[in-house]
Amino acid sequence: MRLMFKKPIPKISTIGGGTGSFVILSGLKDFPVELYAIVSMMDSGGSTGKLRDQLGVLPPGDLRQALVALSESEDIWRTLFTYRYDNGDLSGHNFGNILLSTLERITGSNKDAVNYAMRILQTKGEVIPVTYSDCTLCAEYEDGDIVMGESIIDNNVYSQSRIKRVYLSPGALINIDAKRILERSDFIIIGPGDLYTSIFPNLVVEGMKDTLSGVTAKKIFISNLMSKKGQTDAFKLTDFLEEIEKYAGENILDYVLINSVKPDPDILKIYQEKEGSWMIEDNVKGKYFKKTRIIRADLISREKIQQNPSDQVKRSLIRHDPRKTAESIYRIIDSRSLF
Amino acid sequence: MRLMFKKPIPKISTIGGGTGSFVILSGLKDFPVELYAIVSMMDSGGSTGKLRDQLGVLPPGDLRQALVALSESEDIWRTLFTYRYDNGDLSGHNFGNILLSTLERITGSNKDAVNYAMRILQTKGEVIPVTYSDCTLCAEYEDGDIVMGESIIDNNVYSQSRIKRVYLSPGALINIDAKRILERSDFIIIGPGDLYTSIFPNLVVEGMKDTLSGVTAKKIFISNLMSKKGQTDAFKLTDFLEEIEKYAGENILDYVLINSVKPDPDILKIYQEKEGSWMIEDNVKGKYFKKTRIIRADLISREKIQQNPSDQVKRSLIRHDPRKTAESIYRIIDSRSLF
Repeated sequence: MRLMFKKPIPKISTIGGGTGSFVILSGLKDFPVELYAIVSMMDSGGSTGKLRDQLGVLPPGDLRQALVALSESEDIWRTLFTYRYDNGDLSGHNFGNILLSTLERITGSNKDAVNYAMRILQTKGEVIPVTYSDCTLCAEYEDGDIVMGESIIDNNVYSQSRIKRVYLSPGALINIDAKRILERSDFIIIGPGDLYTSIFPNLVVEGMKDTLSGVTAKKIFISNLMSKKGQTDAFKLTDFLEEIEKYAGENILDYVLINSVKPDPDILKIYQEKEGSWMIEDNVKGKYFKKTRIIRADLISREKIQQNPSDQVKRSLIRHDPRKTAESIYRIIDSRSLF
Repeated sequence: MRLMFKKPIPKISTIGGGTGSFVILSGLKDFPVELYAIVSMMDSGGSTGKLRDQLGVLPPGDLRQALVALSESEDIWRTLFTYRYDNGDLSGHNFGNILLSTLERITGSNKDAVNYAMRILQTKGEVIPVTYSDCTLCAEYEDGDIVMGESIIDNNVYSQSRIKRVYLSPGALINIDAKRILERSDFIIIGPGDLYTSIFPNLVVEGMKDTLSGVTAKKIFISNLMSKKGQTDAFKLTDFLEEIEKYAGENILDYVLINSVKPDPDILKIYQEKEGSWMIEDNVKGKYFKKTRIIRADLISREKIQQNPSDQVKRSLIRHDPRKTAESIYRIIDSRSLF
């Protein structure tokens, strides 16, 4: 008889929201890991914003995307959760948002609503709101302008001024469950996603910076592929890393994962002309930025985009491949002696 | 060792819609019976009417009520299915209606939508639309007026003229599954419910009258407790029975179950003054109306009404007690030699 030494299963938390988290979670789901998705709760646009205002619930949109990413239930539930109505009273609304909001109305608790949704969708792993505080994301620009509301900041693409800082009004306290999960995690993955409207909304929650600086987990930042007009224009990799240090603390990142393969120049041109969006340049020479190890790999998806007419979410043509990205993350995890 | 002779489990179909069917189904659910709820598909009012028009689906309202009545799933699902929104874009809509409509949009089939809903709600028994044809209920009044639309007929309480007949436009064909279930049933229960807007919408479907006259099942009519203004003003029991024979065929009923206990006179007075509604008089002398056996029993609920502020459905104060009514029905079933 041979003795078998089982590897411990690594606990991984992701911090983010929107499509970025969706990609990472749906990729990592197929690996032997324990997953915790910490998501931002500041979305104020579209269906989410309306339900938030009209029903007095916390914004369901980012929760929904993480729930669907982790779902292992039958197809009909994933289809339902992503179904968007295109006319009538429900026009622009999304079934998953409606279900989450209704569960919150019935139970009187966002936590209970998410727990029910996790059971319905049979998620592999847990989805955890970064905060239960009802708050508004605000951006202060270098010219002194203040813009309030996540979706307004997101759409504020014509400002000539750069964002100086984002903050919450009123201030919001970190969800104690999110804090505990981060403290128990072996790895924390930040991003990808819109820096000021998906990533930083998590980092500016009171208690998050202190938590991140105190935990033993290794922290991995997944760099975006493209700049975002009005937020990260002309950003290079080091701009991202310096900006993250401002919000999360000096030398907070152990690893950065960045794509090393050039996409099709024709598609890059479309991005430049239509979106005002450029590929993020990897301007780090060598393997380290300060103490952060840079990992370069092919992370780009080559799949054709599936256009769903009822889904109004705009999908990037240049985007992370869930499988490749998860493999690169898992390679980092595997390289650590513990695992 | 003793030989046990097990009674066969009777197959019972109900024909109706709305609150009437809800009461019968939720009562009978606790008895050893096999249940099939055949429900009308002509509702055109409120949330149901809007979803029907805006999403191009078959009306979900009567299906939803029957599904909830038969549900044995955890409370949260029954609560969700009956949850009604009171403001914002979803105002007046009902979650169950939204889910059924969305399932129909996704699957492209009302049948599939109902099948999914039966699984979600873990129904004891099946819910079967009387037809899959998209049709409008029409009423011709004695003065020659024609009113189109179930909810408009329902609200047409000030007409001085009586309804001469109801019909469907365009004509609708009986759902083949409903026909087969009726042919295999041991008992068919008709009513209670609004005669012209909940019961007859089922009977005027093409193929229903022929089906009912051909089946071997014993047919039981559950008489309403109160008259309905604009529909059955001044109706006595024999008026109901004669009108039913017009739509379902001569001597079609084997049994009529009617309440024999007088409600509180104060509540009766409220009904007369506020609703223009009188108690149905049992004007049959003796045990038979033609060949139909009259069964008299205490069927009235003495429970207080639970007022749910988010539920806009008006509940009768004088209403059938689900348990007592089901017991009386089961006594009829038990009295037949077969069972």
